[in-house]
Amino acid sequence: MHIGILGSGLMGAKLGTIFAGKGHDVVFSYARTRGKLDRLARQAGGNARAGTVAEAAHQEVVLLAVHWSRLGDVLRLAGDLAGRVVITCSLPMNRGDSKLVIARTSSGAEALQKKRPKARVVSAFGTVPSEVFFPLQRARPKNRPSLLYCGDDARAKKTTAGLIADAGFDPVDAGPLEMARYMEPYTLLIAQLAYESGKSAKLAYRFERY
Amino acid sequence: MHIGILGSGLMGAKLGTIFAGKGHDVVFSYARTRGKLDRLARQAGGNARAGTVAEAAHQEVVLLAVHWSRLGDVLRLAGDLAGRVVITCSLPMNRGDSKLVIARTSSGAEALQKKRPKARVVSAFGTVPSEVFFPLQRARPKNRPSLLYCGDDARAKKTTAGLIADAGFDPVDAGPLEMARYMEPYTLLIAQLAYESGKSAKLAYRFERY
Repeated sequence: MHIGILGSGLMGAKLGTIFAGKGHDVVFSYARTRGKLDRLARQAGGNARAGTVAEAAHQEVVLLAVHWSRLGDVLRLAGDLAGRVVITCSLPMNRGDSKLVIARTSSGAEALQKKRPKARVVSAFGTVPSEVFFPLQRARPKNRPSLLYCGDDARAKKTTAGLIADAGFDPVDAGPLEMARYMEPYTLLIAQLAYESGKSAKLAYRFERY
Repeated sequence: MHIGILGSGLMGAKLGTIFAGKGHDVVFSYARTRGKLDRLARQAGGNARAGTVAEAAHQEVVLLAVHWSRLGDVLRLAGDLAGRVVITCSLPMNRGDSKLVIARTSSGAEALQKKRPKARVVSAFGTVPSEVFFPLQRARPKNRPSLLYCGDDARAKKTTAGLIADAGFDPVDAGPLEMARYMEPYTLLIAQLAYESGKSAKLAYRFERY
């Protein structure tokens, strides 16, 4: 699969590295410096490379992993994203990262879909802290943790589920894109447990039925 | 422990029954008929009995498990709940149960604390479907599922954690009461997975660290 990473911070860098390790073609874009992107691509190995936002946005799958305050800027550079599977893990937080600026009656994922109506938006990967990705790759547990995703485009969701499995999780379909209204607040709950509980941030969750 | 149940619907009836089975004194209250409360108490066995809301509200621990539209009515009957550990699993839904009427900048649990400032409010038990309680009692898994709780009163939280353990879960402290802003939307996510996924509603979740 050809994957463009928009935003090569903690989430984008780690997920892009994992996807490259699974044999996908990955274009890292949108970091503070081109040097950082080059380093990332080199470290990721495989078919990873640094590129512009326009190049990343041209891939069949695009991971949106920028701070919400950067959304307008990166979308302007990315164009209309028509037909692309756009997987977003960008949480609609204010600049101070203290609260959601969209919630209850909409979500960041739905706002993104409205801004880019021709994109096939799926919300995924945002519900776990980036700290868990590499340790999970090493741990390879028999009972994989769950990872929620939601969206309105069935094929885009199937593609996303494959990438979630590549990252070592059991993909759990949370339904239509509007479920992001509940997934995004869940992310803040997870952040509390990861960063404020005094325990390790290498946190994931698993749904179980009895 | 002396536990009053306000609202003997699915959640209240099952949790009260489990608490009675663990040897606690339980007063069931606030059902459509007194006959239903009597039946519940008889089936629960142990030290369970039917009572008025005032009697239930007089116990050291009070479980609030009414539909949000009933909150004003039940609180009027319950009095000021001063000093009581009030565990709420009541989600602030509209009458049609289609959306949260409080979210993002507050939560049902925080609204309850404002209405009853002398109560020691803890949010718990709302994040799993009632369908899982009895099967979990039977399954007794080695790796217990998690159950989130949050509140501002340390002793009330400790009491709540004990009851969560009695119900077969591993209690997970989600922090101050305002975290209910994220726990309540999480409940809707869980409801989606329990009732709309085509799979069993006997659903729970477990946090794991890698």
